[in-house]
Amino acid sequence: MKLSQGFLLVISGPSGSGKGTVSHKLLSQNQDIIFSVSATTRRPRVGEIDGENYFFLEEEEFKDMTQNNEFLEYAFVHNNYYGTPRKFVLDEIDKGEIVLLEIDVQGALQIKKNYKNVVFVFLLPPTMDELRNRIVKRGTESQEDIERRFKNAFEELNFVGEYDYFVVNDKVENAVQNIENIIEAEKLRVKRHSDIKNKIISKEED
Amino acid sequence: MKLSQGFLLVISGPSGSGKGTVSHKLLSQNQDIIFSVSATTRRPRVGEIDGENYFFLEEEEFKDMTQNNEFLEYAFVHNNYYGTPRKFVLDEIDKGEIVLLEIDVQGALQIKKNYKNVVFVFLLPPTMDELRNRIVKRGTESQEDIERRFKNAFEELNFVGEYDYFVVNDKVENAVQNIENIIEAEKLRVKRHSDIKNKIISKEED
Repeated sequence: MKLSQGFLLVISGPSGSGKGTVSHKLLSQNQDIIFSVSATTRRPRVGEIDGENYFFLEEEEFKDMTQNNEFLEYAFVHNNYYGTPRKFVLDEIDKGEIVLLEIDVQGALQIKKNYKNVVFVFLLPPTMDELRNRIVKRGTESQEDIERRFKNAFEELNFVGEYDYFVVNDKVENAVQNIENIIEAEKLRVKRHSDIKNKIISKEED
Repeated sequence: MKLSQGFLLVISGPSGSGKGTVSHKLLSQNQDIIFSVSATTRRPRVGEIDGENYFFLEEEEFKDMTQNNEFLEYAFVHNNYYGTPRKFVLDEIDKGEIVLLEIDVQGALQIKKNYKNVVFVFLLPPTMDELRNRIVKRGTESQEDIERRFKNAFEELNFVGEYDYFVVNDKVENAVQNIENIIEAEKLRVKRHSDIKNKIISKEED
């Protein structure tokens, strides 16, 4: 009897919330979680593997896929397209897998319109001061960029109400532990299982 | 900043699912969970304390309370009334506490109609054979009672769809661990918090 069912786990939050670090640690500790591979039209960097880091596509292919509604979400950033291929995600979920997608707030809101079997986690900075520190620490950005990112992050906090869960990323280990709890609980969600009674009854006949 | 909010945790399931054992162990391991004290018109047994084991009421008091909608649910069993006082539960939840109510399926369905801030957990036996074993092992019942209980339990499995979570009670420790995960996840539910952004922002000013 398999009582667990797959779903898409969206980890999202503003710039500086630490969603990249948290997602990376979560994946490294949970080998059974599948990383959602994005498609992009940008050129591969040295060492990047097609189908592992990204699905590398020509612009025409990408645009065809958008026309055919083959992305759960997509965006045009710095002259390149990025998107989440619907088929990859749904195939894994059909197999009963949990698929992790780390994405910005705008992308998460697109996903919410296009697909229902999703658990949305909003990652919060512990304080706004800490959020600013994290943005500053990236170091490569101008003061203007920092202010713009901070302002965007502040605005994006308004969208927490669209999510299922919030996790305060005070320490990465705590945030990962919280998300692991959420995953274990969501595996036990009744709404994702249509035949619990029959699974219990049929176990009599083993 | 307190980001956690209280809720009512209903642990329910058919006779033989082990909801009493699981609830008892959950409470003993989690001193911060509040046990919902029921009201009853039956006489106190030796050692039972009013307000701790039960709120012991006269029948007239109990009936007045039903008239005034002061129960989240109530039932008449073996010539006595039993009920869940609304005020006790709501006062604790207002303080931010998690209140545990262990109750049969009919009671849980009544709660669902009367109150919204609830997490419903349905406890399942691992197999129907095991369910029958557990009912038989009580030992004090006639064959007829056993068959009636088994038939009721079988019918009550149909109501699992009304619940939020299911937990298979194969081993008590596993079931308790699953419920602890559910509690930790539910503390992070966005829908129970209206002002997450302001709580984060105000932490700047500490």
